[in-house]
Amino acid sequence: MATTGDADLSPASVEAINDMVRSAFPGSRNYCHELGTGYAISRLEAAEGDLRPGGFISGPTQFGAADAALWFATFVGLGRMEPMALTSELSIRFLRPAIGSVLFARADVDIVTRRSVVGTVKIWCDDDVDRPTATAQGTYAIPLPK
Amino acid sequence: MATTGDADLSPASVEAINDMVRSAFPGSRNYCHELGTGYAISRLEAAEGDLRPGGFISGPTQFGAADAALWFATFVGLGRMEPMALTSELSIRFLRPAIGSVLFARADVDIVTRRSVVGTVKIWCDDDVDRPTATAQGTYAIPLPK
Amino acid sequence: MATTGDADLSPASVEAINDMVRSAFPGSRNYCHELGTGYAISRLEAAEGDLRPGGFISGPTQFGAADAALWFATFVGLGRMEPMALTSELSIRFLRPAIGSVLFARADVDIVTRRSVVGTVKIWCDDDVDRPTATAQGTYAIPLPK
Amino acid sequence: MATTGDADLSPASVEAINDMVRSAFPGSRNYCHELGTGYAISRLEAAEGDLRPGGFISGPTQFGAADAALWFATFVGLGRMEPMALTSELSIRFLRPAIGSVLFARADVDIVTRRSVVGTVKIWCDDDVDRPTATAQGTYAIPLPK
Repeated sequence: MATTGDADLSPASVEAINDMVRSAFPGSRNYCHELGTGYAISRLEAAEGDLRPGGFISGPTQFGAADAALWFATFVGLGRMEPMALTSELSIRFLRPAIGSVLFARADVDIVTRRSVVGTVKIWCDDDVDRPTATAQGTYAIPLPK
Repeated sequence: MATTGDADLSPASVEAINDMVRSAFPGSRNYCHELGTGYAISRLEAAEGDLRPGGFISGPTQFGAADAALWFATFVGLGRMEPMALTSELSIRFLRPAIGSVLFARADVDIVTRRSVVGTVKIWCDDDVDRPTATAQGTYAIPLPK
Repeated sequence: MATTGDADLSPASVEAINDMVRSAFPGSRNYCHELGTGYAISRLEAAEGDLRPGGFISGPTQFGAADAALWFATFVGLGRMEPMALTSELSIRFLRPAIGSVLFARADVDIVTRRSVVGTVKIWCDDDVDRPTATAQGTYAIPLPK
Repeated sequence: MATTGDADLSPASVEAINDMVRSAFPGSRNYCHELGTGYAISRLEAAEGDLRPGGFISGPTQFGAADAALWFATFVGLGRMEPMALTSELSIRFLRPAIGSVLFARADVDIVTRRSVVGTVKIWCDDDVDRPTATAQGTYAIPLPK
């Protein structure tokens, strides 16, 4: 997995990312939960508005988690926070009902280039890391010098 | 475009769909705006929590709009409301910043089979129907008889 | 549809594209069939090796057609041939068996930016333009100045 | 990873799969290389017609490898060969030029349900397993009882 500079994104940086999320994107409820070599994990506490009938966490909420995890993994891949990195595309497959109170997403970096970061994401509820509720892949575009 | 039974989903049925959405999925703010032969349009009034810095409507909010429009188009394709139809997969590409106060998504049905409905979605803000902010494709799975 | 310069890609240019395909990518059997404002159509004569049991044109063959049509549409979107434009991602959904002797794919440009061209593709056999065998969306990356 | 019955798809079964491929789908040049719990690896010897200018293995050839690996992984997931399992959708991202003489794809099963198998695929050349040329995800539909 081609990642660089995770020395700059040590566990201590989880909080730095979350500070940025809170100030730059207050609408997001997906926070950084864990960072490691070539990956990031996001965490969301499900709220009433996230639920479909039957108590399932909705598809768009899971998409948001995948998108956030890949954003954080982009920071890992680049070795720096890059808040203006933007999702260029993301595809998601829903695997089983998402039942639980906390939604996690883990994004693994597939490649880092000058233009973009591509990653693969698994999503699950609570402790059910071996029972993914969705799987996704996508691309973040890195801002180019003008 | 292989659609059936739109006699049963006349313009009058927009309200029937919205009644169902309100009662079955109160967390959703995407409502049905228009139905026609082989397509449906959803409508969302952007709220504070939907916005990214700069006032852009966020990616997950646009994904939610695409997902809702394709759900409504699934009803058109089937010729009946099928609230338990579930997204099996959806891929989205973001094209330009989504700036505006109302987000529309139009889903056109590509095929209806016994198992699923596949459709293509365009998303835009306000009157900018010719300046799509995102384009998507995806599949709804139809519940099978047990 | 944000396209430019189709004056430079008039019907006469179908042959210019096909000359380029033949010389630069002799392995391809997908040729340019038609160009218009914001779209391109590719054409493939199915051969023995393209067929699955039952005489269906295989999925990878249809993917190749979608990829070629989007390449040609990228030229339309850019207003010039750009042989080094490369697919960055492409997703495809298979709709019904592809039965026929000629496979067509039509790619419509969704957006052209400095970095990429995004388009939506429909694929069909022979005269069955209203019975698509597959639907796809994808992105071509445009080479950046060094 | 939810897989079953790999006792029935032991290493010895690689040859059973390849016998089936040769007889049922003679147009395919992707053979089964390895099977294990929840995964399958395909192998293709690149030929002249697979190459783009510069000697790169083409995108459609890589798509074909991903598609074949996911087909073999579907057999692993189901615990039986199911030649009539069909790709319903597949998305692929190209990561770096594919330079080499043998193309491998490894598909890991994400879920097996009554209706479908979803998996994630990595593609590489020769010994460069840590330098993937493409990453993909997709769905095979399982034939339903009539």
